[in-house]
Amino acid sequence: MSIEVAEIGAIPESWTRSHVLDLESLSAEEITLLLDTAVHFKELTGGCRHKISAMPGRTIANLFFENSTRTRTSFSLAARRLGADTVEFSAGGSSLSKGETFIDTAKNIEAMNVDAVVVRHSTPGTPHILAQELNCAVVSAGDGPHEHPTQGLLDILTIREHRGDLAGLTVALVGDIAHSRTARSNIWGLKKLGAHVIVCGPSTLVSRRWEELGVEVSYHLDDIVHRCDVLNLLRIQFERQYTRPFPSVHEYALLYAMTGARLKQAKEDILIMAPGPINRGVEVTPDVADGPHSVILDQVTNGLAVRMAALWLVTGAHAAKTFT
Amino acid sequence: MSIEVAEIGAIPESWTRSHVLDLESLSAEEITLLLDTAVHFKELTGGCRHKISAMPGRTIANLFFENSTRTRTSFSLAARRLGADTVEFSAGGSSLSKGETFIDTAKNIEAMNVDAVVVRHSTPGTPHILAQELNCAVVSAGDGPHEHPTQGLLDILTIREHRGDLAGLTVALVGDIAHSRTARSNIWGLKKLGAHVIVCGPSTLVSRRWEELGVEVSYHLDDIVHRCDVLNLLRIQFERQYTRPFPSVHEYALLYAMTGARLKQAKEDILIMAPGPINRGVEVTPDVADGPHSVILDQVTNGLAVRMAALWLVTGAHAAKTFT
Amino acid sequence: MSIEVAEIGAIPESWTRSHVLDLESLSAEEITLLLDTAVHFKELTGGCRHKISAMPGRTIANLFFENSTRTRTSFSLAARRLGADTVEFSAGGSSLSKGETFIDTAKNIEAMNVDAVVVRHSTPGTPHILAQELNCAVVSAGDGPHEHPTQGLLDILTIREHRGDLAGLTVALVGDIAHSRTARSNIWGLKKLGAHVIVCGPSTLVSRRWEELGVEVSYHLDDIVHRCDVLNLLRIQFERQYTRPFPSVHEYALLYAMTGARLKQAKEDILIMAPGPINRGVEVTPDVADGPHSVILDQVTNGLAVRMAALWLVTGAHAAKTFT
Repeated sequence: MSIEVAEIGAIPESWTRSHVLDLESLSAEEITLLLDTAVHFKELTGGCRHKISAMPGRTIANLFFENSTRTRTSFSLAARRLGADTVEFSAGGSSLSKGETFIDTAKNIEAMNVDAVVVRHSTPGTPHILAQELNCAVVSAGDGPHEHPTQGLLDILTIREHRGDLAGLTVALVGDIAHSRTARSNIWGLKKLGAHVIVCGPSTLVSRRWEELGVEVSYHLDDIVHRCDVLNLLRIQFERQYTRPFPSVHEYALLYAMTGARLKQAKEDILIMAPGPINRGVEVTPDVADGPHSVILDQVTNGLAVRMAALWLVTGAHAAKTFT
Repeated sequence: MSIEVAEIGAIPESWTRSHVLDLESLSAEEITLLLDTAVHFKELTGGCRHKISAMPGRTIANLFFENSTRTRTSFSLAARRLGADTVEFSAGGSSLSKGETFIDTAKNIEAMNVDAVVVRHSTPGTPHILAQELNCAVVSAGDGPHEHPTQGLLDILTIREHRGDLAGLTVALVGDIAHSRTARSNIWGLKKLGAHVIVCGPSTLVSRRWEELGVEVSYHLDDIVHRCDVLNLLRIQFERQYTRPFPSVHEYALLYAMTGARLKQAKEDILIMAPGPINRGVEVTPDVADGPHSVILDQVTNGLAVRMAALWLVTGAHAAKTFT
Repeated sequence: MSIEVAEIGAIPESWTRSHVLDLESLSAEEITLLLDTAVHFKELTGGCRHKISAMPGRTIANLFFENSTRTRTSFSLAARRLGADTVEFSAGGSSLSKGETFIDTAKNIEAMNVDAVVVRHSTPGTPHILAQELNCAVVSAGDGPHEHPTQGLLDILTIREHRGDLAGLTVALVGDIAHSRTARSNIWGLKKLGAHVIVCGPSTLVSRRWEELGVEVSYHLDDIVHRCDVLNLLRIQFERQYTRPFPSVHEYALLYAMTGARLKQAKEDILIMAPGPINRGVEVTPDVADGPHSVILDQVTNGLAVRMAALWLVTGAHAAKTFT
């Protein structure tokens, strides 16, 4: 913990939010500030490796009502790399089974004087409700199929690291767009930063109405792959589907899996991304997932960076509002 | 961690216990010392918000054999706000399923050199057995329907914060007295400090024999509400009941829920408390739970304060006995 | 955290391994170096009680795919006593249920920049695969019935503390040899350090073919008990057996339980060990488990010591290879 607070710096005056709930409501400037802060922390921590004393004595509560390995751990490590404490809650073992309302559970946690609540819930809008009801900072870790803002940020940060400016790039989101919070957060963030976005998948999972969001809709990966600078291969979210959206996983893979054969049609410097967990042989084949174009594991490391940035900015902004 | 040990002070000589197992066996002086220590730590930590270095290098084990969100987290945060480490055990994933005895499990944990064990178990007396068998400090986090001493302490601390001296106050415990460890700990603590205690609920959950403990028994909330300085609204513990103690939840609520209508009959400065998790519409209606008389969330914050006090006192007293 | 790095010292040049996967592949010199380091840390921490700043800023991931109370906690406490952070993963709540491969899960965790992964898995060889696939240190916490190297080390350290040199001692492993990873790690470690090893149990659980490993095979505890310096009483691993290896637990206990009666036939200074969790009345009776020859709880404390040593050595050696 040899990094001085002077090196960490102060919260920029242009950042005033106590919450990160979605990318839809953030401006391009706010998204850029989040990304710049992430880069700053990534450098200060030697690539998200070392601890710095940016949030000593603060406590972050992980309030997860859906299963999660990587997102929960990523938030927890991000908090601790900044010197904060963490407490963990999950659906199992909680008071909800004793008839308590979700808001009462959260208010109880807040009354233990946590500085920020990181919330994941299957119901869209849950983080927004908490932000209204609680007097502490709130960061969404995903609300049902709605948004997953830090996933969007880490995807965009990974593209920016490899390509620089987002403006003018063509980014395709491939797969289960209908049920994907990652898709929604990517679309909002990428559009605001000037990228061209294509959503691509079977018509049962990609509606023409997505065009209303200003994105291109495609039903054939082979039609678009040669135009893309980035492919973000989404997982089929079987757990959110009530009907079978395609005849078989094999048929899906034939049409939409990113394979070595399809890679030959792509630009030489195409980036292959996936929010994970990946299903090898479904949305991506092993030669591509482990190949030179893949930045899948860079995404994981950048998850730490954007979560450090988000937690530091919202708790700092909240403290400034509350105590000054 | 800028608070000096000098400000924290030493364990008072009048405190000699290595365990907090129940309030029945504590004297009024010991209870008062616990409460005074809690107030001291609450002030030193800016309202249970900041960390102090009162227990650096010590390790507290949370040994929970019943589900718990708030109590487990409260103990964990209390320990870490004092600079201690925590380790977590629960029934799932434990060695008990491999045929090990409970005492052997606890002795194994002790052999990893923890300084205190916080134990919750469905069997009354479990903390007392551990205190005999282990050579470390033990704090009860609830033993079946018997006692929940730190809940009693935090309830009493909350009353004292708002009313000062407990002597002469009338405190009613309303609801499922028969199955409530919170009721038992409140009764012992409140009586020792000079309060008048009423237990109130349906006759299937409140026996006349409670009068032997020196408390008043009532079966009608409407009869007593005008005399009360404090109402502590206990949750119906459906999970501890083998028969239905009343015809319907609605009927219970008609007779015993604290509502806006009943609040009009009450003293102007009545305190509304509930150990939580609350069932809105059963023991309390939302207008009362969220109204100006409610100190329900103060109780949660004070939970941190009394648990900091209990952990610091017992580990300090134990260390003094063992190492000097 | 008042211990200076100077007192901790540097990784000995003779230690070059980034992983501790089994005792079979370690030399006698490496095992001795691990034990000496464990003794050193035990002393520096006042008997594994206090924290030292040997691994500040490092992060250890516990990746447990089998239930564990003591081993998981022991690794976690060992890491934190050295000043490292820990993150916890388990089978429940993981991405494996979403179709991710085990190696992808581990690579994701590694991409969060953990310094070492501690892995337990039901499949033999899992730690070895991870060591090949990951670019961080790996320590096995048990791979099915294959090996449990830190258990072997803590058993041997406990014998060495009480008897000094291992050479020439007779150590019997009693019970379910066929399914015991503890037995395999003990055999490799004890043989390398010059001890004579006897495996003893019913013929359904102890094959004559164990003689090929250079150990003596016995089917009658009464035949060998008088010759033993150490008895290590293994738990019957009912959960790893597909057929009943003996008619009844009672019959097993008659032949193989260490009882007060059998203790009278033993050497005066015999050590009674058990890796735990123990089944009182099956492999050992309470009078022996709690008697003066028992060092069962010493084993638990020594578990912290050998795990501190293993984590410090592998992360240090890995960092030296990677960064210099």
